[in-house]
Amino acid sequence: LNIALLAGDGIGPEVIDQAVKVSDAVAKKFGHEITWKPALTGAAAIDAVGEPYPDETHNICKTSDAVLFGAIGDPKYDNDPSAPVRPEQGLLKMRKALGLFANVRPTFVFPSLLDKSPLKKERIEGTDLVFLRELTGGIYFGEKGRRDDRNTAYDNCVYTKEEVTRLARKGFELAMQRSKRLCCVDKANVLETSRLWRETVQGLEAEYPEVEVSYEFVDAVAMRLVQWPSDYDVLITENLFGDILTDEASVISGSMGLMPSASLGSDIGLFEPIHGSYPQAAGKNIANPMATVLSAAMMFENFDLIEEGKVIREAVNKALAEGIVTEDLSEGDKAYGTSEVGDWLA
Amino acid sequence: LNIALLAGDGIGPEVIDQAVKVSDAVAKKFGHEITWKPALTGAAAIDAVGEPYPDETHNICKTSDAVLFGAIGDPKYDNDPSAPVRPEQGLLKMRKALGLFANVRPTFVFPSLLDKSPLKKERIEGTDLVFLRELTGGIYFGEKGRRDDRNTAYDNCVYTKEEVTRLARKGFELAMQRSKRLCCVDKANVLETSRLWRETVQGLEAEYPEVEVSYEFVDAVAMRLVQWPSDYDVLITENLFGDILTDEASVISGSMGLMPSASLGSDIGLFEPIHGSYPQAAGKNIANPMATVLSAAMMFENFDLIEEGKVIREAVNKALAEGIVTEDLSEGDKAYGTSEVGDWLA
Ligand SMILES: CC(C)[C@H](C(=O)O)[C@@H](O)C(=O)O
Ligand SMILES: CC(C)[C@H](C(=O)O)[C@@H](O)C(=O)O
Repeated sequence: LNIALLAGDGIGPEVIDQAVKVSDAVAKKFGHEITWKPALTGAAAIDAVGEPYPDETHNICKTSDAVLFGAIGDPKYDNDPSAPVRPEQGLLKMRKALGLFANVRPTFVFPSLLDKSPLKKERIEGTDLVFLRELTGGIYFGEKGRRDDRNTAYDNCVYTKEEVTRLARKGFELAMQRSKRLCCVDKANVLETSRLWRETVQGLEAEYPEVEVSYEFVDAVAMRLVQWPSDYDVLITENLFGDILTDEASVISGSMGLMPSASLGSDIGLFEPIHGSYPQAAGKNIANPMATVLSAAMMFENFDLIEEGKVIREAVNKALAEGIVTEDLSEGDKAYGTSEVGDWLA
Repeated sequence: LNIALLAGDGIGPEVIDQAVKVSDAVAKKFGHEITWKPALTGAAAIDAVGEPYPDETHNICKTSDAVLFGAIGDPKYDNDPSAPVRPEQGLLKMRKALGLFANVRPTFVFPSLLDKSPLKKERIEGTDLVFLRELTGGIYFGEKGRRDDRNTAYDNCVYTKEEVTRLARKGFELAMQRSKRLCCVDKANVLETSRLWRETVQGLEAEYPEVEVSYEFVDAVAMRLVQWPSDYDVLITENLFGDILTDEASVISGSMGLMPSASLGSDIGLFEPIHGSYPQAAGKNIANPMATVLSAAMMFENFDLIEEGKVIREAVNKALAEGIVTEDLSEGDKAYGTSEVGDWLA
């Protein structure tokens, strides 16, 4: 396996290191060989070569079997979102260039961490949902600009039936592997793109007769996710709604530091923790590497190496049970460093 | 005072009746006279005259001092968002026609109801925030349509500097009356309209030197609202983000059935509970009228009749303390009917 390794900014390099250790241990155990190909991205790439997603990085990704990604973002860009070059542009360019149209974001609870949630235990017990967010269309990629002397700004949201269909099919397929329930999240009472989403999904229902499909408005889902998250299973939605709702969903479990994600589309998948670059913690050996390690588990599973993924998940569960955790989870008990947790898992 | 009375659908008529009783009692006590002018809206208006916001209703609103609104929405329209006539269209038409560009949605906690929240008590204690949502611009009102044989759909999001300025000024003014903290919620790392929002608000900062302004991305706010709602005070945002975030915020307090709102712009304000038409409860005398009654309090306060608003708020607090509540809040104790609660408050 050739894996492009995009560590990125902040705590990215530290957590990526642990995922590499764990993946190598798994590869050894199961007789695989992994060749890691490091490449620059994010603020680190801007600093080095003036661009957040350089061509060289793209070439490395294109010729790999998958991409393992850390985090991007640096506070020096945060207060100037209209700066000519920003790390986010690299992220969007990469998603588009690699055809990563489906962002898979699971939210589940670790029983031992229920108390960490801002929600009451009885509200989140049993929560196990997955968002499929469309990642290369919609208002993120439509025409945008200014007119009237820069006093009017516009952003275009555009979707084609084909874009909706390929994302929705992934949703139906995922639902078939899980509890056969699919929720399409839109704003069809206001938006034309949402009406296209809804009618396209309705048109696919007949091909997946076992899947029970529901349609909910994005504002209602924003409420119900907080009220009864365990009611949901697979949710599909467009790019911007997905951005907002997946972040909202990530905090309900109380295990945000443990949530992995995958971005899929063409042959090359990208796997990354959902947390950010957390610059305040960078270089201190305190960041929790588990979300990145679990992203590596998703990577193996996506290669159909199911057992390989499973041993990683079991190792994480065991570390949690035995208290081999970083300070965000240690609750007064001994806290381990990022690399110690990585070593233990490996 | 001439008040247009738009009861609407579902439980709308019942809860509106209680707000009328209470307002009349307050008017009597303080020596005002209220003339109520009932008018049709929503599904009720479609059924009667084929349109959700008939001209006659608009004329009544235009010639009134304020509008008191119940709720709209009927399940018979829910599964067909592309039906030619829908209640929502009436709502959007009314907002635009009455120039209601600022939707004011407070979220606060009633200490006696903390246990109703899906969030842990220590997370929500002290929560008292207000959203100002832009209500007549953005992607709701931009050009929308289909091309390529209906296989491509588009929605345009457009904002002018003027639209942002008038909403932002209301935000700064509200912040000055409260704790002088203002949060501008946008997605300036991706959207051009958000960059216009951010730079416009930044341009106003000098005029309100006492207000401390922060800028946060919509996805981060969707998380932090669940994590630490009491960190926020006044938040301003565009139409679609406001739709999603105000609904999310409404469930954190656990007092959703008690949350009022105001939509302001020109001289005529509109006041309504944030809950929906709750058709399952219609006609059963079980709906909680307090959100509508508190909307009437906001109406008085908007006329600068501060004492009048205050006595209503005190009455509601007293009813809660003494258990004069509908079944949604009664917890095994005696539940009162909608009209009994209204009578008691009056
Ligand atoms: C950084 C930003 C452009 C990005 C997005 O909005 O997609 C992020 O919030 C995410 O969800 O991956
Ligand atoms: C019914 C719908 C069109 C409306 C909106 O999206 O504005 C509602 O959700 C609201 O928030 O008042």
